[in-house]
Amino acid sequence: MPMNRKDPETQAGGSFSAEEKRGLYKAIFGRRDVRGQFMPDDIPDDVLSKILTAAHHAPSVGFMQPWNFIVIKDLATKQLVYDDFVQANNEAAEMFDPVRRSMYQRLKLEGIREAPVNICVTCDHQRAGPVVIGRTHMSIMDLYSCVCAVQNLWLAARAEGLGVGWVSILHEERLKEILGIPSNVTPVAYLCVGFVNFFFRNPELETVGWQSRLPVKDVIFIDRWGQALQESDGLNEELSRDLDWRKGF
Amino acid sequence: MPMNRKDPETQAGGSFSAEEKRGLYKAIFGRRDVRGQFMPDDIPDDVLSKILTAAHHAPSVGFMQPWNFIVIKDLATKQLVYDDFVQANNEAAEMFDPVRRSMYQRLKLEGIREAPVNICVTCDHQRAGPVVIGRTHMSIMDLYSCVCAVQNLWLAARAEGLGVGWVSILHEERLKEILGIPSNVTPVAYLCVGFVNFFFRNPELETVGWQSRLPVKDVIFIDRWGQALQESDGLNEELSRDLDWRKGF
Repeated sequence: MPMNRKDPETQAGGSFSAEEKRGLYKAIFGRRDVRGQFMPDDIPDDVLSKILTAAHHAPSVGFMQPWNFIVIKDLATKQLVYDDFVQANNEAAEMFDPVRRSMYQRLKLEGIREAPVNICVTCDHQRAGPVVIGRTHMSIMDLYSCVCAVQNLWLAARAEGLGVGWVSILHEERLKEILGIPSNVTPVAYLCVGFVNFFFRNPELETVGWQSRLPVKDVIFIDRWGQALQESDGLNEELSRDLDWRKGF
Repeated sequence: MPMNRKDPETQAGGSFSAEEKRGLYKAIFGRRDVRGQFMPDDIPDDVLSKILTAAHHAPSVGFMQPWNFIVIKDLATKQLVYDDFVQANNEAAEMFDPVRRSMYQRLKLEGIREAPVNICVTCDHQRAGPVVIGRTHMSIMDLYSCVCAVQNLWLAARAEGLGVGWVSILHEERLKEILGIPSNVTPVAYLCVGFVNFFFRNPELETVGWQSRLPVKDVIFIDRWGQALQESDGLNEELSRDLDWRKGF
Protein backbone atom coordinates (compact mmCIF):
# COMPACT_ATOMS: atom_id res chain seq x y z
CA MET A 1 0.00 0.00 0.00
CA PRO A 2 1.43 3.40 -0.93
CA MET A 3 -0.76 5.21 1.63
CA ASN A 4 0.06 6.26 5.14
CA ARG A 5 -1.85 8.03 7.88
CA LYS A 6 -0.25 11.40 7.21
CA ASP A 7 -1.66 11.58 3.70
CA PRO A 8 -4.90 13.59 3.68
CA GLU A 9 -5.73 12.32 0.19
CA THR A 10 -6.29 8.83 1.55
CA GLN A 11 -8.08 9.71 4.77
CA ALA A 12 -11.80 10.19 5.25
CA GLY A 13 -13.54 12.58 7.63
CA GLY A 14 -12.80 12.22 11.29
CA SER A 15 -14.97 11.79 14.33
CA PHE A 16 -18.70 12.35 14.72
CA SER A 17 -20.35 15.09 16.78
CA ALA A 18 -23.01 14.06 19.29
CA GLU A 19 -25.72 15.27 16.92
CA GLU A 20 -24.21 13.47 13.93
CA LYS A 21 -24.18 10.23 15.93
CA ARG A 22 -27.73 10.94 16.98
CA GLY A 23 -28.75 11.21 13.33
CA LEU A 24 -27.39 7.78 12.51
CA TYR A 25 -28.97 6.07 15.52
CA LYS A 26 -32.25 7.88 14.93
CA ALA A 27 -32.34 6.44 11.41
CA ILE A 28 -31.43 2.95 12.65
CA PHE A 29 -33.99 2.85 15.48
CA GLY A 30 -36.72 4.81 13.69
CA ARG A 31 -36.59 2.90 10.39
CA ARG A 32 -39.78 0.93 9.73
CA ASP A 33 -41.07 -1.54 7.17
CA VAL A 34 -43.86 0.62 5.79
CA ARG A 35 -46.94 -0.84 4.17
CA GLY A 36 -49.85 1.44 4.85
CA GLN A 37 -48.96 5.09 5.38
CA PHE A 38 -47.84 6.17 1.92
CA MET A 39 -48.86 9.57 0.62
CA PRO A 40 -49.18 10.11 -3.14
CA ASP A 41 -46.70 13.03 -3.26
CA ASP A 42 -43.95 12.74 -5.87
CA ILE A 43 -40.45 12.13 -4.60
CA PRO A 44 -38.30 15.07 -5.82
CA ASP A 45 -35.38 14.02 -8.02
CA ASP A 46 -32.80 15.42 -5.60
CA VAL A 47 -34.16 13.24 -2.78
CA LEU A 48 -34.38 10.15 -4.98
CA SER A 49 -30.86 10.85 -6.12
CA LYS A 50 -29.60 10.99 -2.50
CA ILE A 51 -31.06 7.64 -1.48
CA LEU A 52 -29.80 5.93 -4.66
CA THR A 53 -26.33 7.42 -4.15
CA ALA A 54 -26.39 6.17 -0.54
CA ALA A 55 -27.30 2.69 -1.81
CA HIS A 56 -24.51 2.76 -4.41
CA HIS A 57 -21.99 3.43 -1.62
CA ALA A 58 -22.73 0.18 0.17
CA PRO A 59 -19.87 -2.25 0.71
CA SER A 60 -19.49 -4.83 -2.05
CA VAL A 61 -17.42 -7.97 -2.24
CA GLY A 62 -14.26 -7.30 -4.28
CA PHE A 63 -15.70 -3.79 -4.96
CA MET A 64 -17.93 -5.63 -7.44
CA GLN A 65 -20.93 -3.24 -7.17
CA PRO A 66 -23.20 -5.98 -8.52
CA TRP A 67 -26.40 -3.99 -8.02
CA ASN A 68 -28.86 -2.29 -10.33
CA PHE A 69 -31.80 -0.17 -9.26
CA ILE A 70 -34.92 -0.33 -11.42
CA VAL A 71 -36.95 2.76 -10.52
CA ILE A 72 -40.60 2.00 -11.28
CA LYS A 73 -43.27 4.67 -11.56
CA ASP A 74 -45.30 3.12 -14.37
CA LEU A 75 -48.78 2.23 -13.08
CA ALA A 76 -49.31 -0.75 -15.38
CA THR A 77 -46.03 -2.31 -14.23
CA LYS A 78 -46.93 -1.78 -10.58
CA GLN A 79 -50.32 -3.38 -11.22
CA LEU A 80 -48.68 -6.50 -12.69
CA VAL A 81 -46.43 -6.81 -9.65
CA TYR A 82 -49.41 -6.26 -7.37
CA ASP A 83 -51.36 -9.00 -9.16
CA ASP A 84 -48.51 -11.42 -8.53
CA PHE A 85 -48.40 -10.35 -4.88
CA VAL A 86 -52.11 -11.15 -4.48
CA GLN A 87 -51.61 -14.63 -5.86
CA ALA A 88 -48.51 -15.31 -3.75
CA ASN A 89 -50.17 -13.89 -0.66
CA ASN A 90 -53.15 -16.23 -1.05
CA GLU A 91 -50.76 -19.15 -1.33
CA ALA A 92 -48.91 -17.89 1.75
CA ALA A 93 -52.08 -17.63 3.85
CA GLU A 94 -52.77 -21.32 3.22
CA MET A 95 -49.45 -22.24 4.83
CA PHE A 96 -50.43 -20.95 8.28
CA ASP A 97 -52.54 -22.80 10.82
CA PRO A 98 -56.16 -21.53 11.01
CA VAL A 99 -55.63 -19.19 13.99
CA ARG A 100 -52.56 -17.47 12.55
CA ARG A 101 -54.12 -17.55 9.06
CA SER A 102 -57.02 -15.32 10.02
CA MET A 103 -54.62 -12.88 11.67
CA TYR A 104 -52.30 -13.08 8.64
CA GLN A 105 -55.14 -12.22 6.28
CA ARG A 106 -55.87 -9.03 8.20
CA LEU A 107 -52.32 -7.73 7.88
CA LYS A 108 -51.47 -5.25 5.14
CA LEU A 109 -48.20 -6.50 3.73
CA GLU A 110 -47.44 -4.20 0.78
CA GLY A 111 -47.96 -0.70 -0.61
CA ILE A 112 -47.07 -1.41 -4.24
CA ARG A 113 -49.74 0.76 -5.88
CA GLU A 114 -49.98 3.51 -3.26
CA ALA A 115 -46.24 4.20 -3.06
CA PRO A 116 -45.31 6.70 -5.79
CA VAL A 117 -42.05 4.88 -6.50
CA ASN A 118 -41.12 1.19 -6.43
CA ILE A 119 -37.46 0.19 -6.64
CA CYS A 120 -36.29 -3.28 -7.58
CA VAL A 121 -32.72 -3.93 -6.41
CA THR A 122 -31.04 -6.64 -8.46
CA CYS A 123 -27.76 -8.57 -8.40
CA ASP A 124 -25.74 -9.21 -11.57
CA HIS A 125 -23.66 -12.29 -10.75
CA GLN A 126 -21.35 -11.65 -13.70
CA ARG A 127 -20.67 -7.97 -13.05
CA ALA A 128 -16.95 -8.31 -12.39
CA GLY A 129 -15.82 -11.32 -14.40
CA PRO A 130 -15.40 -14.95 -13.43
CA VAL A 131 -13.28 -14.57 -10.26
CA VAL A 132 -14.02 -11.95 -7.62
CA ILE A 133 -11.94 -11.18 -4.51
CA GLY A 134 -13.77 -12.47 -1.45
CA ARG A 135 -16.28 -14.48 -3.49
CA THR A 136 -14.06 -17.48 -4.12
CA HIS A 137 -15.35 -19.45 -1.13
CA MET A 138 -18.74 -17.88 -0.37
CA SER A 139 -20.44 -17.28 -3.70
CA ILE A 140 -23.50 -15.78 -2.00
CA MET A 141 -21.45 -12.68 -1.13
CA ASP A 142 -22.66 -10.73 -4.17
CA LEU A 143 -26.27 -11.08 -3.02
CA TYR A 144 -25.20 -9.93 0.45
CA SER A 145 -23.59 -6.83 -1.08
CA CYS A 146 -26.92 -5.93 -2.68
CA VAL A 147 -28.67 -6.30 0.68
CA CYS A 148 -26.19 -3.82 2.19
CA ALA A 149 -27.26 -1.43 -0.56
CA VAL A 150 -30.91 -1.95 0.39
CA GLN A 151 -30.17 -1.15 4.03
CA ASN A 152 -28.24 2.03 3.10
CA LEU A 153 -31.16 3.14 0.94
CA TRP A 154 -33.64 2.34 3.72
CA LEU A 155 -31.77 4.40 6.33
CA ALA A 156 -31.21 7.35 3.99
CA ALA A 157 -34.91 7.24 3.11
CA ARG A 158 -35.82 7.41 6.81
CA ALA A 159 -33.69 10.52 7.27
CA GLU A 160 -35.41 12.10 4.24
CA GLY A 161 -38.90 11.31 5.63
CA LEU A 162 -39.51 8.51 3.13
CA GLY A 163 -40.99 5.20 4.15
CA VAL A 164 -39.74 1.98 2.57
CA GLY A 165 -41.51 -1.37 2.51
CA TRP A 166 -39.77 -4.56 1.35
CA VAL A 167 -42.18 -6.89 -0.45
CA SER A 168 -40.92 -10.48 -0.49
CA ILE A 169 -44.23 -12.24 -1.10
CA LEU A 170 -43.71 -12.50 -4.85
CA HIS A 171 -42.81 -15.19 -7.35
CA GLU A 172 -39.24 -14.48 -8.38
CA GLU A 173 -39.63 -15.82 -11.93
CA ARG A 174 -42.78 -13.79 -12.54
CA LEU A 175 -41.10 -10.63 -11.24
CA LYS A 176 -38.17 -11.20 -13.61
CA GLU A 177 -40.61 -11.61 -16.47
CA ILE A 178 -42.52 -8.42 -15.64
CA LEU A 179 -39.36 -6.31 -15.36
CA GLY A 180 -37.42 -8.00 -18.18
CA ILE A 181 -34.63 -9.10 -15.84
CA PRO A 182 -32.12 -11.42 -17.61
CA SER A 183 -31.44 -14.94 -16.41
CA ASN A 184 -28.01 -14.22 -14.88
CA VAL A 185 -29.48 -11.47 -12.68
CA THR A 186 -31.33 -12.05 -9.38
CA PRO A 187 -33.96 -9.67 -8.02
CA VAL A 188 -32.91 -9.21 -4.39
CA ALA A 189 -35.49 -6.74 -3.09
CA TYR A 190 -38.71 -5.15 -4.28
CA LEU A 191 -39.18 -1.89 -2.39
CA CYS A 192 -42.15 0.47 -2.11
CA VAL A 193 -40.96 4.03 -1.45
CA GLY A 194 -42.79 7.25 -0.66
CA PHE A 195 -43.40 9.97 1.88
CA VAL A 196 -45.56 8.77 4.77
CA ASN A 197 -47.95 10.53 7.10
CA PHE A 198 -46.27 8.91 10.09
CA PHE A 199 -43.81 6.23 11.14
CA PHE A 200 -44.78 3.62 13.72
CA ARG A 201 -42.81 3.81 16.94
CA ASN A 202 -42.28 0.04 16.93
CA PRO A 203 -42.42 -2.62 14.21
CA GLU A 204 -46.02 -3.38 13.25
CA LEU A 205 -45.66 -7.12 13.82
CA GLU A 206 -44.54 -6.32 17.37
CA THR A 207 -47.34 -3.81 17.91
CA VAL A 208 -50.09 -6.21 16.80
CA GLY A 209 -48.66 -9.01 18.93
CA TRP A 210 -47.51 -11.31 16.13
CA GLN A 211 -43.93 -11.58 17.43
CA SER A 212 -42.00 -10.01 20.33
CA ARG A 213 -38.66 -8.23 20.27
CA LEU A 214 -36.01 -10.58 21.66
CA PRO A 215 -33.86 -9.16 24.46
CA VAL A 216 -30.59 -8.23 22.75
CA LYS A 217 -28.51 -10.04 25.37
CA ASP A 218 -30.23 -13.30 24.42
CA VAL A 219 -28.81 -13.17 20.89
CA ILE A 220 -25.22 -12.62 21.98
CA PHE A 221 -22.71 -15.41 22.64
CA ILE A 222 -19.14 -15.09 23.88
CA ASP A 223 -16.31 -16.78 21.94
CA ARG A 224 -18.41 -19.80 20.94
CA TRP A 225 -22.00 -20.68 19.97
CA GLY A 226 -24.13 -21.23 23.10
CA GLN A 227 -21.88 -19.43 25.60
CA ALA A 228 -24.28 -16.85 27.00
CA LEU A 229 -23.37 -13.55 28.58
CA GLN A 230 -23.03 -13.75 32.36
CA GLU A 231 -25.10 -11.47 34.59
CA SER A 232 -21.87 -10.05 35.98
CA ASP A 233 -20.42 -9.30 32.54
CA GLY A 234 -19.84 -5.61 31.90
CA LEU A 235 -21.34 -5.94 28.42
CA ASN A 236 -24.52 -7.41 29.91
CA GLU A 237 -24.87 -4.38 32.18
CA GLU A 238 -24.32 -1.96 29.31
CA LEU A 239 -26.87 -3.76 27.14
CA SER A 240 -29.52 -3.31 29.84
CA ARG A 241 -28.62 0.35 30.21
CA ASP A 242 -28.80 0.80 26.45
CA LEU A 243 -32.47 0.00 26.51
CA ASP A 244 -33.06 3.48 27.88
CA TRP A 245 -30.46 4.98 25.57
CA ARG A 246 -32.18 3.43 22.57
CA LYS A 247 -35.63 4.63 23.64
CA GLY A 248 -34.27 8.18 23.58
CA PHE A 249 -34.32 8.19 19.76
CA MET B 1 -54.77 -1.82 12.73
CA PRO B 2 -55.88 -0.05 15.91
CA MET B 3 -53.36 2.77 15.45
CA ASN B 4 -53.82 6.16 13.90
CA ARG B 5 -51.57 9.12 13.27
CA LYS B 6 -52.78 11.08 16.27
CA ASP B 7 -51.58 8.45 18.71
CA PRO B 8 -48.13 9.37 20.05
CA GLU B 9 -47.64 5.85 21.39
CA THR B 10 -47.45 4.51 17.87
CA GLN B 11 -45.40 7.26 16.28
CA ALA B 12 -41.63 7.51 16.11
CA GLY B 13 -39.49 10.64 16.12
CA GLY B 14 -40.09 13.16 13.39
CA SER B 15 -37.84 14.84 10.93
CA PHE B 16 -34.06 15.08 10.90
CA SER B 17 -32.00 18.22 11.42
CA ALA B 18 -29.35 19.06 8.83
CA GLU B 19 -26.64 17.84 11.19
CA GLU B 20 -28.49 14.61 11.98
CA LYS B 21 -28.79 13.90 8.24
CA ARG B 22 -25.15 14.74 7.87
CA GLY B 23 -24.28 12.14 10.51
CA LEU B 24 -26.07 9.39 8.63
CA TYR B 25 -24.55 10.26 5.26
CA LYS B 26 -21.11 10.67 6.82
CA ALA B 27 -21.37 7.10 8.16
CA ILE B 28 -22.60 5.78 4.81
CA PHE B 29 -19.94 7.49 2.68
CA GLY B 30 -17.10 7.19 5.21
CA ARG B 31 -17.61 3.50 6.07
CA ARG B 32 -14.71 1.32 4.90
CA ASP B 33 -13.85 -2.36 4.79
CA VAL B 34 -10.88 -2.24 7.15
CA ARG B 35 -8.08 -4.77 7.04
CA GLY B 36 -4.89 -3.07 8.07
CA GLN B 37 -5.33 -0.12 10.43
CA PHE B 38 -6.49 -1.78 13.65
CA MET B 39 -5.16 -0.56 16.96
CA PRO B 40 -4.95 -2.98 19.91
CA ASP B 41 -7.08 -0.83 22.26
CA ASP B 42 -9.98 -2.61 23.95
CA ILE B 43 -13.48 -1.70 22.80
CA PRO B 44 -15.33 -0.36 25.89
CA ASP B 45 -18.45 -2.34 26.76
CA ASP B 46 -20.73 0.66 26.26
CA VAL B 47 -19.48 1.11 22.70
CA LEU B 48 -19.74 -2.61 21.92
CA SER B 49 -23.22 -2.56 23.38
CA LYS B 50 -24.27 0.31 21.08
CA ILE B 51 -23.14 -1.36 17.87
CA LEU B 52 -24.75 -4.69 18.85
CA THR B 53 -28.00 -2.92 19.76
CA ALA B 54 -27.91 -1.13 16.39
CA ALA B 55 -27.46 -4.49 14.66
CA HIS B 56 -30.35 -6.02 16.62
CA HIS B 57 -32.63 -3.25 15.34
CA ALA B 58 -32.19 -4.22 11.71
CA PRO B 59 -35.28 -5.12 9.72
CA SER B 60 -36.10 -8.84 9.73
CA VAL B 61 -38.51 -10.85 7.66
CA GLY B 62 -41.66 -11.54 9.70
CA PHE B 63 -39.86 -9.83 12.64
CA MET B 64 -37.99 -13.13 12.88
CA GLN B 65 -34.74 -11.67 14.30
CA PRO B 66 -32.86 -14.76 13.09
CA TRP B 67 -29.42 -13.44 14.04
CA ASN B 68 -26.91 -14.26 16.75
CA PHE B 69 -23.69 -12.39 17.43
CA ILE B 70 -20.72 -14.42 18.60
CA VAL B 71 -18.31 -11.92 20.16
CA ILE B 72 -14.82 -13.41 19.94
CA LYS B 73 -11.86 -12.13 21.94
CA ASP B 74 -10.18 -15.47 22.62
CA LEU B 75 -6.78 -15.50 20.91
CA ALA B 76 -6.70 -19.26 20.28
CA THR B 77 -10.07 -19.09 18.52
CA LYS B 78 -8.93 -16.17 16.37
CA GLN B 79 -5.78 -18.10 15.46
CA LEU B 80 -7.84 -21.09 14.27
CA VAL B 81 -9.97 -18.80 12.09
CA TYR B 82 -6.83 -17.11 10.78
CA ASP B 83 -5.29 -20.50 9.90
CA ASP B 84 -8.37 -21.33 7.85
CA PHE B 85 -8.19 -17.93 6.14
CA VAL B 86 -4.57 -18.60 5.12
CA GLN B 87 -5.54 -21.90 3.54
CA ALA B 88 -8.58 -20.45 1.75
CA ASN B 89 -6.61 -17.43 0.60
CA ASN B 90 -3.94 -19.63 -0.99
CA GLU B 91 -6.68 -21.52 -2.81
CA ALA B 92 -8.22 -18.22 -3.90
CA ALA B 93 -4.93 -16.88 -5.30
CA GLU B 94 -4.69 -19.90 -7.60
CA MET B 95 -8.01 -18.95 -9.20
CA PHE B 96 -6.71 -15.67 -10.66
CA ASP B 97 -4.68 -15.32 -13.85
CA PRO B 98 -0.95 -14.72 -13.23
CA VAL B 99 -1.07 -10.91 -13.51
CA ARG B 100 -3.97 -10.48 -11.12
CA ARG B 101 -2.62 -13.24 -8.88
CA SER B 102 0.56 -11.37 -8.05
CA MET B 103 -1.47 -8.25 -7.26
CA TYR B 104 -3.94 -10.34 -5.24
CA GLN B 105 -1.15 -11.80 -3.16
CA ARG B 106 0.06 -8.34 -2.16
CA LEU B 107 -3.36 -7.28 -0.81
CA LYS B 108 -4.04 -7.53 2.91
CA LEU B 109 -7.51 -9.02 3.12
CA GLU B 110 -8.14 -9.55 6.84
CA GLY B 111 -7.29 -8.27 10.32
CA ILE B 112 -8.44 -11.30 12.32
CA ARG B 113 -5.64 -11.34 14.88
CA GLU B 114 -4.93 -7.60 15.11
CA ALA B 115 -8.55 -6.56 15.66
CA PRO B 116 -9.33 -6.79 19.40
CA VAL B 117 -12.81 -8.15 18.71
CA ASN B 118 -14.15 -10.47 16.02
CA ILE B 119 -17.91 -10.88 15.61
CA CYS B 120 -19.51 -13.76 13.77
CA VAL B 121 -23.07 -12.93 12.67
CA THR B 122 -25.15 -16.07 12.17
CA CYS B 123 -28.64 -16.94 10.89
CA ASP B 124 -30.87 -19.45 12.69
CA HIS B 125 -33.24 -20.69 9.98
CA GLN B 126 -35.63 -22.14 12.56
CA ARG B 127 -35.84 -19.10 14.84
CA ALA B 128 -39.53 -18.42 14.35
CA GLY B 129 -41.11 -21.79 13.58
CA PRO B 130 -41.87 -23.48 10.27
CA VAL B 131 -43.78 -20.67 8.50
CA VAL B 132 -42.60 -17.06 8.57
CA ILE B 133 -44.42 -14.04 7.14
CA GLY B 134 -42.62 -12.89 4.01
CA ARG B 135 -40.45 -16.00 3.80
CA THR B 136 -43.02 -18.23 2.15
CA HIS B 137 -41.81 -17.53 -1.39
CA MET B 138 -38.23 -16.29 -0.93
CA SER B 139 -36.67 -18.52 1.69
CA ILE B 140 -33.38 -16.63 1.48
CA MET B 141 -35.00 -13.67 3.26
CA ASP B 142 -33.72 -14.72 6.69
CA LEU B 143 -30.14 -14.54 5.46
CA TYR B 144 -30.88 -11.11 4.00
CA SER B 145 -32.19 -9.94 7.40
CA CYS B 146 -28.87 -10.89 8.97
CA VAL B 147 -27.01 -8.89 6.32
CA CYS B 148 -29.10 -5.83 7.23
CA ALA B 149 -27.91 -6.36 10.82
CA VAL B 150 -24.31 -6.43 9.59
CA GLN B 151 -24.76 -3.14 7.74
CA ASN B 152 -26.35 -1.47 10.80
CA LEU B 153 -23.43 -2.63 12.93
CA TRP B 154 -20.93 -1.42 10.33
CA LEU B 155 -22.43 2.09 10.15
CA ALA B 156 -22.75 2.42 13.94
CA ALA B 157 -19.15 1.28 14.26
CA ARG B 158 -18.03 4.00 11.82
CA ALA B 159 -19.76 6.67 13.90
CA GLU B 160 -18.02 5.32 17.03
CA GLY B 161 -14.60 5.41 15.33
CA LEU B 162 -14.44 1.63 14.95
CA GLY B 163 -13.29 -0.03 11.76
CA VAL B 164 -14.98 -3.21 10.54
CA GLY B 165 -13.61 -5.71 8.03
CA TRP B 166 -15.77 -8.49 6.59
CA VAL B 167 -13.73 -11.66 5.98
CA SER B 168 -15.38 -13.96 3.45
CA ILE B 169 -12.33 -15.96 2.41
CA LEU B 170 -13.07 -18.82 4.79
CA HIS B 171 -14.40 -22.36 4.57
CA GLU B 172 -17.91 -22.22 5.98
CA GLU B 173 -17.86 -25.74 7.39
CA ARG B 174 -14.53 -25.20 9.13
CA LEU B 175 -15.77 -21.92 10.63
CA LYS B 176 -18.85 -23.71 11.99
CA GLU B 177 -16.63 -26.37 13.50
CA ILE B 178 -14.32 -23.82 15.18
CA LEU B 179 -17.20 -21.85 16.69
CA GLY B 180 -19.47 -24.82 17.48
CA ILE B 181 -22.25 -23.52 15.22
CA PRO B 182 -25.08 -26.08 14.86
CA SER B 183 -26.11 -27.50 11.50
CA ASN B 184 -29.35 -25.48 11.16
CA VAL B 185 -27.48 -22.21 11.60
CA THR B 186 -25.54 -20.41 8.83
CA PRO B 187 -22.58 -18.11 9.51
CA VAL B 188 -23.39 -15.02 7.43
CA ALA B 189 -20.48 -12.71 8.23
CA TYR B 190 -17.17 -12.88 10.03
CA LEU B 191 -16.23 -9.37 11.11
CA CYS B 192 -13.00 -7.92 12.49
CA VAL B 193 -13.74 -4.90 14.71
CA GLY B 194 -11.53 -2.36 16.44
CA PHE B 195 -10.46 1.25 16.66
CA VAL B 196 -8.31 2.31 13.72
CA ASN B 197 -5.61 4.90 13.30
CA PHE B 198 -7.33 6.20 10.17
CA PHE B 199 -10.03 5.45 7.62
CA PHE B 200 -9.24 5.46 3.91
CA ARG B 201 -11.01 8.17 1.95
CA ASN B 202 -11.97 5.70 -0.78
CA PRO B 203 -12.27 1.90 -0.88
CA GLU B 204 -8.82 0.28 -0.96
CA LEU B 205 -9.58 -1.77 -4.06
CA GLU B 206 -10.44 1.49 -5.83
CA THR B 207 -7.33 3.25 -4.51
CA VAL B 208 -4.93 0.51 -5.62
CA GLY B 209 -6.58 0.36 -9.06
CA TRP B 210 -8.12 -3.12 -8.80
CA GLN B 211 -11.62 -1.94 -9.71
CA SER B 212 -13.22 1.47 -10.43
CA ARG B 213 -16.33 3.00 -8.92
CA LEU B 214 -19.18 2.74 -11.44
CA PRO B 215 -21.00 6.00 -12.21
CA VAL B 216 -24.22 5.74 -10.20
CA LYS B 217 -26.36 6.68 -13.20
CA ASP B 218 -25.08 3.60 -15.03
CA VAL B 219 -26.64 1.25 -12.45
CA ILE B 220 -30.09 2.84 -12.63
CA PHE B 221 -32.86 1.73 -14.97
CA ILE B 222 -36.30 3.27 -15.42
CA ASP B 223 -39.40 1.03 -15.19
CA ARG B 224 -37.71 -1.96 -16.82
CA TRP B 225 -34.31 -3.67 -16.99
CA GLY B 226 -32.09 -2.00 -19.61
CA GLN B 227 -34.01 1.29 -19.89
CA ALA B 228 -31.24 3.76 -19.08
CA LEU B 229 -31.69 7.25 -17.70
CA GLN B 230 -31.86 9.92 -20.39
CA GLU B 231 -29.44 12.84 -20.36
CA SER B 232 -32.41 15.18 -20.08
CA ASP B 233 -33.92 13.32 -17.14
CA GLY B 234 -34.13 15.42 -13.95
CA LEU B 235 -32.85 12.48 -11.93
CA ASN B 236 -29.79 12.23 -14.15
CA GLU B 237 -28.99 15.86 -13.53
CA GLU B 238 -29.38 15.47 -9.77
CA LEU B 239 -27.18 12.38 -9.73
CA SER B 240 -24.36 14.35 -11.38
CA ARG B 241 -24.83 17.17 -8.91
CA ASP B 242 -24.78 14.69 -6.02
CA LEU B 243 -21.22 13.80 -6.84
CA ASP B 244 -20.18 17.08 -5.25
CA TRP B 245 -22.70 16.70 -2.43
CA ARG B 246 -21.31 13.28 -1.63
CA LYS B 247 -17.70 14.45 -1.65
CA GLY B 248 -18.61 16.93 1.08
CA PHE B 249 -18.78 14.14 3.65
